[in-house]
Amino acid sequence: MKKWVYFFGEGDTKDKALLGGKGANLGEMTKIGLPVPPGFTITTEACIEFYKQGKKWAPGLESQIEENIKKLEAKTGKRFGDSENPLLVSVRSGAKISMPGMMDTVLNLGLNDQTVQIMARKTGDERFAYDSYRRFIQMFGDVVLGVEHSGFEKILDNTKKAKGVHYDTELSADDWKNVIEQFKKLVDREKGVKFPDDPKKQLRMSIDAVFSSWNNKRAIAYRKLNNIPDDLGTAVNVQVMVFGNMGNDSATGVGFTRNPATGEKEHYGEYLINAQGEDVVAGIRTPKHIDEMKKELPKSYQELIKIYSVLEKHYRDMQDFEFTIEKGKLYMLQTRTGKRTAQSAVKIAVDMVDEGLIDRKEAVLRIEPGQLDQLLHKQLDPKAKEKAEIIGKGLPASPGAAVGKAVFTADDAAMRASEKVILVRTETSPEDIEGMHAAQGILTARGGMTSHAAVVARGMGKCCVAGCSDITVDEDAKEFKAGGVVIKEGDWITLDGGKGEVMKGQMPLVEPSMTGDFGTLMKWADEFRKLGVWTNADTPHDAEFARKFGAEGIGLCRTEHMFFEGERIKAVREMILADDKEGREKALAKLLPYQRGDFRGILKAMKGLPVTIRLLDPPLHEFLPKEEKDIKELARDMGISVERLQEKIDSLHEFNPMLGFRGCRLGIVYPEINEMQVQAIFEAACELKKDGVDVKPEVMIPVLGHVNEMKVMKELVNNKAKEVMKKKGTKVSYHVGVMMELPRACLTADKIAEYAEFFSFGTNDLTQTTFGFSRDDAGKFINEYIERNVLERDPFQVLDRDGVGQLVKTAVKKGRKTRPELKIGICGEHGGEPSSVEFCHEAGLTYVSCSPFRVPIARLAAAQAALKHGKK
Amino acid sequence: MKKWVYFFGEGDTKDKALLGGKGANLGEMTKIGLPVPPGFTITTEACIEFYKQGKKWAPGLESQIEENIKKLEAKTGKRFGDSENPLLVSVRSGAKISMPGMMDTVLNLGLNDQTVQIMARKTGDERFAYDSYRRFIQMFGDVVLGVEHSGFEKILDNTKKAKGVHYDTELSADDWKNVIEQFKKLVDREKGVKFPDDPKKQLRMSIDAVFSSWNNKRAIAYRKLNNIPDDLGTAVNVQVMVFGNMGNDSATGVGFTRNPATGEKEHYGEYLINAQGEDVVAGIRTPKHIDEMKKELPKSYQELIKIYSVLEKHYRDMQDFEFTIEKGKLYMLQTRTGKRTAQSAVKIAVDMVDEGLIDRKEAVLRIEPGQLDQLLHKQLDPKAKEKAEIIGKGLPASPGAAVGKAVFTADDAAMRASEKVILVRTETSPEDIEGMHAAQGILTARGGMTSHAAVVARGMGKCCVAGCSDITVDEDAKEFKAGGVVIKEGDWITLDGGKGEVMKGQMPLVEPSMTGDFGTLMKWADEFRKLGVWTNADTPHDAEFARKFGAEGIGLCRTEHMFFEGERIKAVREMILADDKEGREKALAKLLPYQRGDFRGILKAMKGLPVTIRLLDPPLHEFLPKEEKDIKELARDMGISVERLQEKIDSLHEFNPMLGFRGCRLGIVYPEINEMQVQAIFEAACELKKDGVDVKPEVMIPVLGHVNEMKVMKELVNNKAKEVMKKKGTKVSYHVGVMMELPRACLTADKIAEYAEFFSFGTNDLTQTTFGFSRDDAGKFINEYIERNVLERDPFQVLDRDGVGQLVKTAVKKGRKTRPELKIGICGEHGGEPSSVEFCHEAGLTYVSCSPFRVPIARLAAAQAALKHGKK
Repeated sequence: MKKWVYFFGEGDTKDKALLGGKGANLGEMTKIGLPVPPGFTITTEACIEFYKQGKKWAPGLESQIEENIKKLEAKTGKRFGDSENPLLVSVRSGAKISMPGMMDTVLNLGLNDQTVQIMARKTGDERFAYDSYRRFIQMFGDVVLGVEHSGFEKILDNTKKAKGVHYDTELSADDWKNVIEQFKKLVDREKGVKFPDDPKKQLRMSIDAVFSSWNNKRAIAYRKLNNIPDDLGTAVNVQVMVFGNMGNDSATGVGFTRNPATGEKEHYGEYLINAQGEDVVAGIRTPKHIDEMKKELPKSYQELIKIYSVLEKHYRDMQDFEFTIEKGKLYMLQTRTGKRTAQSAVKIAVDMVDEGLIDRKEAVLRIEPGQLDQLLHKQLDPKAKEKAEIIGKGLPASPGAAVGKAVFTADDAAMRASEKVILVRTETSPEDIEGMHAAQGILTARGGMTSHAAVVARGMGKCCVAGCSDITVDEDAKEFKAGGVVIKEGDWITLDGGKGEVMKGQMPLVEPSMTGDFGTLMKWADEFRKLGVWTNADTPHDAEFARKFGAEGIGLCRTEHMFFEGERIKAVREMILADDKEGREKALAKLLPYQRGDFRGILKAMKGLPVTIRLLDPPLHEFLPKEEKDIKELARDMGISVERLQEKIDSLHEFNPMLGFRGCRLGIVYPEINEMQVQAIFEAACELKKDGVDVKPEVMIPVLGHVNEMKVMKELVNNKAKEVMKKKGTKVSYHVGVMMELPRACLTADKIAEYAEFFSFGTNDLTQTTFGFSRDDAGKFINEYIERNVLERDPFQVLDRDGVGQLVKTAVKKGRKTRPELKIGICGEHGGEPSSVEFCHEAGLTYVSCSPFRVPIARLAAAQAALKHGKK
Repeated sequence: MKKWVYFFGEGDTKDKALLGGKGANLGEMTKIGLPVPPGFTITTEACIEFYKQGKKWAPGLESQIEENIKKLEAKTGKRFGDSENPLLVSVRSGAKISMPGMMDTVLNLGLNDQTVQIMARKTGDERFAYDSYRRFIQMFGDVVLGVEHSGFEKILDNTKKAKGVHYDTELSADDWKNVIEQFKKLVDREKGVKFPDDPKKQLRMSIDAVFSSWNNKRAIAYRKLNNIPDDLGTAVNVQVMVFGNMGNDSATGVGFTRNPATGEKEHYGEYLINAQGEDVVAGIRTPKHIDEMKKELPKSYQELIKIYSVLEKHYRDMQDFEFTIEKGKLYMLQTRTGKRTAQSAVKIAVDMVDEGLIDRKEAVLRIEPGQLDQLLHKQLDPKAKEKAEIIGKGLPASPGAAVGKAVFTADDAAMRASEKVILVRTETSPEDIEGMHAAQGILTARGGMTSHAAVVARGMGKCCVAGCSDITVDEDAKEFKAGGVVIKEGDWITLDGGKGEVMKGQMPLVEPSMTGDFGTLMKWADEFRKLGVWTNADTPHDAEFARKFGAEGIGLCRTEHMFFEGERIKAVREMILADDKEGREKALAKLLPYQRGDFRGILKAMKGLPVTIRLLDPPLHEFLPKEEKDIKELARDMGISVERLQEKIDSLHEFNPMLGFRGCRLGIVYPEINEMQVQAIFEAACELKKDGVDVKPEVMIPVLGHVNEMKVMKELVNNKAKEVMKKKGTKVSYHVGVMMELPRACLTADKIAEYAEFFSFGTNDLTQTTFGFSRDDAGKFINEYIERNVLERDPFQVLDRDGVGQLVKTAVKKGRKTRPELKIGICGEHGGEPSSVEFCHEAGLTYVSCSPFRVPIARLAAAQAALKHGKK
């Protein structure tokens, strides 16, 4: 017979999967001699079996529960439904991973019209007994029978009103008796059942309810949100009741072994005299700081202080625990690893290493890399949050907070930058780049987590709320509507990019605090990691910024953004509209000095480190205007007819620009464009080298699918580089490589590697082509897919290992077969996402490249991957 | 020392790669005792080496040539430059694969101012000697020295004019001497070189010229056009001259052992008395039919007749040969497998089996499958071709010819169908389907070989010229311009879809002649092939048609075309514009009877054979109008405001519809659409079954990339099928499978096969996603890619084995690992392309599916693949 039930102490934290977090910890605490009220845990396996059997108990479960109840009865001398010494228990769910969305707790189980009288007699406190009883009916009714909470509350309110009192504590035993009668009637009326008297039936129903709660909507939603698998099941903990509400020598409270907000090593916690746990949580009475217990309950306080240190020494991590004092006796009801802010997490990890509690590896493994984001951006002042008037909610597209005056065009943003502005658009396009740079934050009404606005904002480390469908932007009228609120140009708004919230007015922000501990932790991480961490940066400013965050190179320097700035766009358009190569070259000659300047700046900023410059990527039509009035203006500027311009625009139109005439396809058909870029790169590099700056340019060919493209492009780069170096009379070492972003490139990586000197996976586009998902359009169904479990995660956020990952691994294997020392990186959005970084480590990549603000996250994730999977 | 030179007879046709086709055949003919003037062949390897050495001769080549010249001299008793008996030779290129685009021939090499005199003396025909000399200078000047042909012609014309004569034959020896002087001066003037006197120098220069001609523009273009690899090199044949122009007992001619146009077994050929080969080709004098030789040169005729049958028996194929009669002695100068029309090819193959010359396998292997196309469509009457006024040239998008009055809208086409019309559009869209059906042929100004017009037209077996950039269509004015010509609505035009030509007026057409031989050959092919051949058909008409061509099932029945017809589109639009599921279901209910009728028709037409029905594929916005006036009209029809309609259209807009909200993505988010389709399929199937018709529906899920999509969709299909079958009280066996058109589907085929009961590769979309090429946009660069050798072939026409093929193979392997008996087909355009069919055979597919008109081609290609690679 399988063991379905464990008495506390039979198992410990090793058995977390089987006993759930709570059960395992109660077992563990019992084992190490902490004062835990006795109890037992029904395993998660029993829950899984419950579902397998069509919501029936596993064979043997009933008898094992029976046995364990007998043990409990033996241990306490109490018996279920006993007329002298009735046993009361709590029933709690407890999954492997803590899930606040699930069924909570049933307390005081075992009470009925008989046992309540004995309880009243034995405690000499009738009021307490009936209060406990009504609490039990209320909880059981709510969480087991599914009676609306509000029904009970209403009865309670009416009773208090009738008695003219404000607090529950002001009600008498008789009042409670009356309330109990009404509660039972409510249950009968609502659910058509008599409230069960038999404690064993109560227990049985509660266990069923806990099992069933595993698949209630809240729980499913919580799991979805937190990526918890659906097949783990929950354990059920049945534990003897202790009472914190047995008078002023009783209390209940929660504690943290260190400060969860700051990480300070101090006795953190709070308690309530004469109360049950739910009173603390409910927040009706204001609990006191744990230190006040020293005076109020000195003996228990001393015990508790000892427990603080026992817990930390035993668990070697900050603990969050619950306790109850029943008539002066302290009981531990729960302990678990405490949640903490990023700041606190870092401080605790570093301190614990100093204290010798954990080693550096453990410290590094303990921080959730994604959490570091909190440390890297301005945040809304938490103190002011209550005052926020939230007028819309969109996607948390790029973290941090921003305050500024609303503006509705990129030009306005650029012009009014000094006033602090927030750029509000229906959606952004490459033409808005300058305005996005100038703005404090970006708000769009359309687009997903990987829309243009979101991607660019994250790249800039700028706060962005995207796809905020609550707002309607009228760009002509320069205003947006959000519900009843109208925000006009110049009105202040505040964004919380971490939450996706849009607020009216000017909210106070706090600066990120990058403490010394953070630096220490990062240093440790660097000791362990194998993967290089590079950055995606298009400007010297971003490059410098990323170096401060520890970037070891630039993995992606996009050149197209550079084409939009100021006067350049005119030359770009002139080039596009030229009728022949000669005309294009004339226009390109105008662009050359700009590009040379760009590259000079970025190569200089990264001196000594590699800079991977991607040649022009987007289709040419992206550089032409779309709106009629802009077209008219451009035609006038260019001195051509609107018709001819429109014709040209039409001829460049593409049905699927993502799969269109872009990247190296442009480079092969119009080599002069890339030649200008290569010339600019090498002129800048040679000049810097002559100035004594160590430069490492890497030229990356985008949108490549065939070895012959690589052959042509490598020749183009080499020829131009040779020509420039000869003219400048100096030599610069460089590589020519490929952005691996098409399935065909991955599938034929062995051939491509004959020419390519490095690979860099562009996993954004690779995800688009592998799935056949357009990033710009997939918003219409991806959320629905995740909702319906068709996809577990958004593959644009977390690298899809089965499909895209398979291509990456194939390419790594084939590429290195041809060129064993091939340098291989990733420069898609995934390069800064911890689980994708882990994959990159496992796949044997050389480096990941991510936006500057994610560099520390990637460093930590890379270290964790190396610690988990060994150095590859 | 490598052997670079082979004397005739040292090698034979086995050595075709080494000696080129011509050299190998001259060797072979020598071996079998045919009267071939002696000579030798310089190998293709020597040519390849020539390029490797930077256009220098391979070591040893010179001495080997020397040796072979000595052999020639020994054999003939003549010597190069000899003052008694000078040796004259011809120099001809000869690649492995015949390439008319290359350097032709230099005749009479060895003549100079001295040897010409000896020749005159020995032949007693001064005029002949000097004529030969001037011919040599002319050819050598043209093909070796690169002097413009016209320069020589001008001198010749002037001379004739000065002498007041019309024909070359009217010029005297002295005239020729004069011409020779002028020719030499021309060479000197044009090229700055003295015309070389030394026969060895002449030979060396000619050999260099042949080697170099391998990479002249014409040759490269020809190779490109005919998919001949660039690295084969050409051989050079040096052969003793014989003269057909030594008087009336001399002649020259060409022969075919059977009629290359009809395949009839007859002595086909023509000759000219007293002429050299070039005179026949040049067409200045009209040659006589070979049978006339019986009277004119009876001895030679008898010899020739014997040779006809020797050649056929030896080569076991129809031969195309050249001969010369020098003073009554017959010489064979060349033989090769004769080119032939499709009709002739089929007849010859079948006849030769009857004659016991070849077996059925060889007969089947002999027909180029693509050639069969000629037999399956109406053609321009070849007799009338000369009169054609070609006004534009586009892509040969769908073969056959069509005559009709130009119309410019699909509606006009449908309305005026009885008059015979040709639909002329800038480009077509799914809304034009009805008009395309009604038209005789389709002409578009934009779009490639796989544009909507091209794909649909091929599917319909309808003539189409696509992407004809020579024309400008003004759809408002209902006319198009082509150069100076304006074609208005109602004007007659003619299309040749096989050549991509647009002609003014009404040209006569001829019906395809499907002779009994064709049927015989197809029957043989079916005996050998392993692959099933199915068809892509959307209508009962197409289905019946395809069955006649031998289709064994429907591999792709597209349901979206059905949505456009007549009243249905209204219901479709109503469905799209509905605000909720209820509204959608209401509109879908209107569509149900139509769809049921569609499926009933097609299932009935294919009774007993499987019909693979693909659920709705395109994004919904394809069903909504794009033009302002159509939008206004629809808004009025639907009783909603233009603004609301526009809003809806905008909300459905996609940046990359190819990668958008389509296929099973629609099915998962709006299951009611597919549910209606499945209901219609099974209602039709059940009703037919009750009527005693054997039905085999196969439901295919499009645009699928993840096993979970398959899981959801299979459940949807199964549930609905069960429901319908229960209601109808009958059972129909069916399968649910997947259209494999995304890389991710192929990569995770093992998982998908857990649910999918068949795979069908949609290689159009798979090519799009694997390459990252949008079919609709790639025209902008694919031609350039092929031009520049970046791509060898258009991957939308010929399946890309390295990339797309790799995914196909992976999917086959993984899919069959999970489900060993998995049925796997292909339903992309490639299913009817011979080399892709071969790949499908090699990859172990179960069947290919192609448009009805390509079914015979696929059957033949499948048989050839099985014969070449063995049954898999």
